[in-house]
Amino acid sequence: MPFIKIELTREGVTREQKQQLIKGITDLFTDILNKDPQLTHISIQEVELDNWGYAGEQVSVLRERGITADKK
Amino acid sequence: MPFIKIELTREGVTREQKQQLIKGITDLFTDILNKDPQLTHISIQEVELDNWGYAGEQVSVLRERGITADKK
Amino acid sequence: MPFIKIELTREGVTREQKQQLIKGITDLFTDILNKDPQLTHISIQEVELDNWGYAGEQVSVLRERGITADKK
Amino acid sequence: MPFIKIELTREGVTREQKQQLIKGITDLFTDILNKDPQLTHISIQEVELDNWGYAGEQVSVLRERGITADKK
Amino acid sequence: MPFIKIELTREGVTREQKQQLIKGITDLFTDILNKDPQLTHISIQEVELDNWGYAGEQVSVLRERGITADKK
Amino acid sequence: MPFIKIELTREGVTREQKQQLIKGITDLFTDILNKDPQLTHISIQEVELDNWGYAGEQVSVLRERGITADKK
Repeated sequence: MPFIKIELTREGVTREQKQQLIKGITDLFTDILNKDPQLTHISIQEVELDNWGYAGEQVSVLRERGITADKK
Repeated sequence: MPFIKIELTREGVTREQKQQLIKGITDLFTDILNKDPQLTHISIQEVELDNWGYAGEQVSVLRERGITADKK
Repeated sequence: MPFIKIELTREGVTREQKQQLIKGITDLFTDILNKDPQLTHISIQEVELDNWGYAGEQVSVLRERGITADKK
Repeated sequence: MPFIKIELTREGVTREQKQQLIKGITDLFTDILNKDPQLTHISIQEVELDNWGYAGEQVSVLRERGITADKK
Repeated sequence: MPFIKIELTREGVTREQKQQLIKGITDLFTDILNKDPQLTHISIQEVELDNWGYAGEQVSVLRERGITADKK
Repeated sequence: MPFIKIELTREGVTREQKQQLIKGITDLFTDILNKDPQLTHISIQEVELDNWGYAGEQVSVLRERGITADKK
């Protein structure tokens, strides 16, 4: 009975990437905890950049300054 | 002081149905736990079908295959 | 595919009352939205009175003053 | 490592007000708990008035009756 | 900036299994979305069996009947 | 009608600090958005160190290595 809620900034995640996340996370719960996939639900919430704060700043402002969330 | 958060797929829930859910759930907390309705808040979040995963699949894909969430 | 998260103060809700809430809310989603109960999950989180704030005060302090969440 | 999730009705909160909330809340966690702001994330979710229930009513209905959430 | 919240029933998940979930999910966000792991936070909430409802029943009751969440 | 949910690691936050957070956040919503404090609810959830992941690691492991969340 896991329910997984993902919140992330709305920055162009594609339908295929969402499917990869859903498949990958569901598989982790089956592989690690032997959970029946029929009981695993996942909800993805994309948050506008004005509505996410990090280090006291709106992410929309951070992006304007060229600061990304990309892996270096 | 209950706060109730509902997440469900965005599939045409009407304004009237939302009102029925809000009234029904608030009444349950008053009837069962004697809670003051003035302290009961409910938030309904409708999630796009691409953003809900079930059994490792996007619900949008399940719906294309004719698999619904309807009671049989 | 509804997921319902309930947060309320930890004030002696019994096992039977939790079952009544679970049954009542699941039935509402079936009755109003025709949802398959096999797809309805509910999680109840009981919050310590020091950890819930209302009107700028900890609920533990409000309770010491005799202010309850009971329906009048 | 705090994560703060704000849910409020969608009623015209401006970009500047969101920034004030983000800055103010992040500062509270630094001032009170000495938290590194780089570890404080905040997500603001604006909820449609039909989707918020209070005292058994949709907020959209309450607003039509002239009942607001303003401080008196 | 993803934040991932996991809710699952409290049924003996070990420290090592939690670490595997944390590592696995963080890696998925890096592999699929190129997210900096320093910006990925995960919170796991284990829910008592009396406090999780599925199909209108408490999970504690389902377990007493021998119904598990195991993959068949 | 704001509801604010705080998740943070369980690391000895005192009752007084919780009260300061509750008062400070409630005041921000009144000062910035003119919200009636009677409609502002806050829930604080303290998460065990084994149950919080950051950068792919359990926080309990990070703490054993001397890595804190303190502001430098």
